[in-house]
Amino acid sequence: MITSKANPRIKEIRILKDPKFIKKSDSFYMEGLRIIGEALQKNSEIETVISCPEILKNGFGSQLVNLAKDKGIEILEVSKAVFESFSHKENPQGLAAIGKQHFSQLEELEISHGLIIALNEVADPGNLGTIIRTADAVSCEGILLLGDTTNPYELNAIRGSMGAIFSQKIVKTDFQSMLTWKNEHGLYLTGTSDKAAADYAYIDYPDPIILLMGSERQGLNNDEMKACDLIVRIPMMQSSDSLNLAVATGVILYEIFNNHRKNISRNNL
Amino acid sequence: MITSKANPRIKEIRILKDPKFIKKSDSFYMEGLRIIGEALQKNSEIETVISCPEILKNGFGSQLVNLAKDKGIEILEVSKAVFESFSHKENPQGLAAIGKQHFSQLEELEISHGLIIALNEVADPGNLGTIIRTADAVSCEGILLLGDTTNPYELNAIRGSMGAIFSQKIVKTDFQSMLTWKNEHGLYLTGTSDKAAADYAYIDYPDPIILLMGSERQGLNNDEMKACDLIVRIPMMQSSDSLNLAVATGVILYEIFNNHRKNISRNNL
Repeated sequence: MITSKANPRIKEIRILKDPKFIKKSDSFYMEGLRIIGEALQKNSEIETVISCPEILKNGFGSQLVNLAKDKGIEILEVSKAVFESFSHKENPQGLAAIGKQHFSQLEELEISHGLIIALNEVADPGNLGTIIRTADAVSCEGILLLGDTTNPYELNAIRGSMGAIFSQKIVKTDFQSMLTWKNEHGLYLTGTSDKAAADYAYIDYPDPIILLMGSERQGLNNDEMKACDLIVRIPMMQSSDSLNLAVATGVILYEIFNNHRKNISRNNL
Repeated sequence: MITSKANPRIKEIRILKDPKFIKKSDSFYMEGLRIIGEALQKNSEIETVISCPEILKNGFGSQLVNLAKDKGIEILEVSKAVFESFSHKENPQGLAAIGKQHFSQLEELEISHGLIIALNEVADPGNLGTIIRTADAVSCEGILLLGDTTNPYELNAIRGSMGAIFSQKIVKTDFQSMLTWKNEHGLYLTGTSDKAAADYAYIDYPDPIILLMGSERQGLNNDEMKACDLIVRIPMMQSSDSLNLAVATGVILYEIFNNHRKNISRNNL
């Protein structure tokens, strides 16, 4: 059992939680029974499970440690003081893990039908995690992170995704590479802007489709809008000029998802 | 100019930021040019504006201070050290304010048409603020906070609302009082549950309507579901069993909003 906070493995774990470091690393830190349960169940690559027997009294927690052992994953046992030195929770459950960041390639995505989201320079990890969670709910084929988008393996992104990060295919790429790939495969690209003429609720959306969302602050710039086959607007009343990015993405994703499934059931009649 | 952090007015401001205290107070703290600009513009009741001339170099900031003076609002000038003792920002802009929490009564709501949201025991201030922002975008007639819902004047709720808190009518009430009011006025109540048979995207929603959303953790309980005239489900694929509450609320709000406006334009043909 590790009882020293100065242990090099423990120092590594503390560094791994720093958002600046996580971009350069290919590992990530996660904590809590629910998220580690999801990662184990979905066969996400886990390098190390860190257990604190003094805190981890929960039966499900012990099961998870045994499951990790069975999978041949390294188990580190640490004292309460050591666990609390890296935990980000007020009442830690005594279970944490180091996983390997996994990203997919554009070529791995299924593009014969369905929905792909492209996110341009999303800044807030909570927004990104929430969008990944919604993407999972509408069965997205993939999530493209363009440019300087926040890392989906940051703590708040993992938390917001509620485990969906382990099942969604996430691709790191840039705007130009996405365009080349889109054109090669003849995919349809829809963007959003509050200045667009087309009302998002009156569109018959092609299937497959890529939905492009801009950053929280700036939305899409002119070049990005020019590259779109269609730009839609979510209407807003009163004094509002914008929605939260995760809400706006959820609203359009569900509109496209509903439009696709209504078309499929109509065609099957 | 106040230069002592121990000044009683400054102590009051620091206390006001505590989520435990804000429930008992009828004031609230806000910070930043954008939100104070919104509050002034929407004639929200502001008791005091706190300006730190050493930091506040921005022209728009000085305009806001002058606007507040013209409205007869008390201006407190404080030193940089004092401002930083209560600011919650890393790089504060040097402008903060104390406002008066404003709540509406059920009787003040317009109920001849449109949408009212009832939120049951929402826990997360960020979620609550984001829902208020979306409610404003679809022109909700009111937001009912039932039971032990978090205070909409907490810092993260105000921030999430992006100023919509100053234009939306927010009512603090409880489930039974809402039911009595709903029955008196013959209003239609729609709840949501992942176990409901009705798919939310295939409903013609009555106008006016109350949309009832449960808490992040538990959704609606049996008694609450029984009180609903209709319960709808947002379909989810893959391994997902829930959406973020602010996203789920946004998705249904926009579905009802679209359904209402499509019906209105159809009836006007």
